[in-house]
Amino acid sequence: MKAILLALAALPTFALAQPLDPAALRDQALNDDTAWNVVADLTTEIGPRLAGSEAEARARDWAVTRLKTLGFSNVRIEPFEIDGWERGVERGEILAPFAQPLVLTALGRSGATPAKGLTGEVVGFDGLAALESAPASAIAGKIVFISHRMAPAQDGSNYGTFVPIRQKGPSIAASKGAAAIVIRSVGSNSHRIAHTGVTTWADGQTPIPAAALSVPDAEQLERLLAKGGTVRLRLVLTPRFTGKRPSGNVIAEIPGRDPAAGIVLISGHLDSWDLGTGAIDDGAGVAIAAASARLAGQAGQPLRTIRVVWFGSEEISAPGGDAYKAAHGGEKHVMAAESDFGSDRIWKFNTLVSEPSSPVLARVGELLLPLGIARGVNDARPGADIHSLAAAGVPIISLRQDGTRYFDIHHTPDDTLDKVDSSQLRQNVAAWTVVLSIAANDPAWPEKPVIQSKSGAK
Amino acid sequence: MKAILLALAALPTFALAQPLDPAALRDQALNDDTAWNVVADLTTEIGPRLAGSEAEARARDWAVTRLKTLGFSNVRIEPFEIDGWERGVERGEILAPFAQPLVLTALGRSGATPAKGLTGEVVGFDGLAALESAPASAIAGKIVFISHRMAPAQDGSNYGTFVPIRQKGPSIAASKGAAAIVIRSVGSNSHRIAHTGVTTWADGQTPIPAAALSVPDAEQLERLLAKGGTVRLRLVLTPRFTGKRPSGNVIAEIPGRDPAAGIVLISGHLDSWDLGTGAIDDGAGVAIAAASARLAGQAGQPLRTIRVVWFGSEEISAPGGDAYKAAHGGEKHVMAAESDFGSDRIWKFNTLVSEPSSPVLARVGELLLPLGIARGVNDARPGADIHSLAAAGVPIISLRQDGTRYFDIHHTPDDTLDKVDSSQLRQNVAAWTVVLSIAANDPAWPEKPVIQSKSGAK
Repeated sequence: MKAILLALAALPTFALAQPLDPAALRDQALNDDTAWNVVADLTTEIGPRLAGSEAEARARDWAVTRLKTLGFSNVRIEPFEIDGWERGVERGEILAPFAQPLVLTALGRSGATPAKGLTGEVVGFDGLAALESAPASAIAGKIVFISHRMAPAQDGSNYGTFVPIRQKGPSIAASKGAAAIVIRSVGSNSHRIAHTGVTTWADGQTPIPAAALSVPDAEQLERLLAKGGTVRLRLVLTPRFTGKRPSGNVIAEIPGRDPAAGIVLISGHLDSWDLGTGAIDDGAGVAIAAASARLAGQAGQPLRTIRVVWFGSEEISAPGGDAYKAAHGGEKHVMAAESDFGSDRIWKFNTLVSEPSSPVLARVGELLLPLGIARGVNDARPGADIHSLAAAGVPIISLRQDGTRYFDIHHTPDDTLDKVDSSQLRQNVAAWTVVLSIAANDPAWPEKPVIQSKSGAK
Repeated sequence: MKAILLALAALPTFALAQPLDPAALRDQALNDDTAWNVVADLTTEIGPRLAGSEAEARARDWAVTRLKTLGFSNVRIEPFEIDGWERGVERGEILAPFAQPLVLTALGRSGATPAKGLTGEVVGFDGLAALESAPASAIAGKIVFISHRMAPAQDGSNYGTFVPIRQKGPSIAASKGAAAIVIRSVGSNSHRIAHTGVTTWADGQTPIPAAALSVPDAEQLERLLAKGGTVRLRLVLTPRFTGKRPSGNVIAEIPGRDPAAGIVLISGHLDSWDLGTGAIDDGAGVAIAAASARLAGQAGQPLRTIRVVWFGSEEISAPGGDAYKAAHGGEKHVMAAESDFGSDRIWKFNTLVSEPSSPVLARVGELLLPLGIARGVNDARPGADIHSLAAAGVPIISLRQDGTRYFDIHHTPDDTLDKVDSSQLRQNVAAWTVVLSIAANDPAWPEKPVIQSKSGAK
């Protein structure tokens, strides 16, 4: 490995105009600042980009200008509508047994308290199963608290274990008559910042106030509950549902030589939560998608069209993916991918294709090895925005980023540019440049639809 | 060293009632949870304890109860008054060139904006010297921004370099007609939390609004200023000066056998900033002071009185130290010390004594070596609360804690119990137990007043 890395370091940088093979493009990407400039400017010139907000609309216009400047063709916005929601005031405090403030933030689509707040007794659970099995009589009229112990993991899998607390906990609590719910943030940091994220309600259910506590505040509440006796909180949460709001996907292309050869889709999402500036979630992803597509285009006009999609409103259950599928599902896609797991180093090359032993994928794997990326499973999980494409059989490539620190930052005010490591960002671009330049040009790319044996690729 | 550590681990734990020598007490301290229980309960049952607040008063009552429970004698509150100040609403946003919110917090003793806020153009400086040399014409009516690059340091010395930006910057800006001032937090973290701390105004000067930006927000502002053009902010800061408020020191003793032998003083401060729960600043310090004094008392009634002082209102320029000096300066103090630098491992044993080569101090040094603590300089800097005692010549002992991560947390919402490492906390208690048990019992303790050659011990 050391010899390979030294060889890489010694490679010259080619001029952009010269057609290059995938290995040379990869190495050029390691010296390319396109992605850094996109994420730096997007987070500085727009900042937070909540689904359906005026800032998200500004981001779409910004994106059109930037993607044209980067040399893409057919740059356009494809609008759709969403059900809007926006944050209001948010405050919390312990009233008894020991008065002190709490740091919390409303979950996306939380209901509101009265403007002057809501007070109630806390009933605590150590996970979703405990809440599910509790009788409504123990919950009605109270403030439910759900805690957990989510540790970091390189593959991010612990999020899958614990995020149902955020997604389903509020609805379950509401169904049992809870006045409100607070959860320990679904995150792995120990800072006084809370992790937001969308929650979902059953059809016809009236949303109750639902908030995440920072981890230190959740631990404070756990200590108080462990002492026994009654714990009372006061919550002030005044988010509101705003009705229909405009959102949209931004699309840009490098047109292929043969329209019948299909489309290679690389994506990220343009919206972000409102607390941070959406640097790792997902400014980095849209930057990686555009920078790698642009570099892949340096190999000369590709056989297939490379399509970059910056999805809108991913954070509220990915309606942009559905809108894209409705508009473009009939087009031939030979590959879909989404970069939406931050900006740290890629370590694993997963696929969800019908021909995992294809020599083309073996070639991709060989070109990724010098970047520290090993071949993984053929059971890739598509990003939320390309889930419906995957469900329709489009082959999926997933380059897995190191997620060890992702859930320290994700959905918090801390999601800012300083968390992006420019060197690791370039490694991401280099890896995707390999994938795109081969997928867009190799006639033997394994493009057959994937017949999924499981209930779905979610 | 390994052999020493193994020997330590093999030492038995003695029953509390049995008189012990300093080495045995030290090793007992490594298994003692008294300090942990104090800091855990103080931060859970009281939480934030702003100087002059009702919570600080509750903390004093809590302290009296706890110190009596721990077996101390002569436990009492010595009240004094301070000029109160309390936080109000605090919000900031960039208006131009790119609108987005900022995370900030008012500095202690900041002036207020109108309730609806203040807008202004930003003029940026890269340090205090640049502000000092700028003409008033460049500043009048504007919002001053001061940035810097404070890196972590084990000895904490970088705080001394940069804290004048917070202490003096606002007054200098006001003297040149600034409408307000924002500074990059005087801290070394990269989280979306701002560092408060007291600022000072010249006599008769009208305070202007003065806030600290979180480091990522300061970097955002730096990027905007670097692009050129006008940057405009809106600030809403509504703190207020509350007039006279009660504060006080809490004192507890282990009376010595010989009143003429003098007092050994160990201290921390009971107040905290309002943003966190005051775990590392300085819940840990009061816990270390009490736990080590209690352990030192296990050696039997000491020759000298061991006096524990939990100072009030340290964060607003240490009036508790002045009050103590006024009340007790005439008593014979043979040593004063304050633990006020968090709860991480002690690595250096500094002194400020007239006889640094005393064999008694050599003995202390030898007993500290197995804890990983090396002898340092005879130029110790006293904690803020014992500065006036030091200026009067009282010998000072300073056990320096590792400050590498202290300024990530200090004066922020992140100052919570989870930041205290119970093992490192015990190492602190063990080290102070050695110092106190020797200072309180060895007739040869170097108690002569210190004649300081410099302008002062500050």
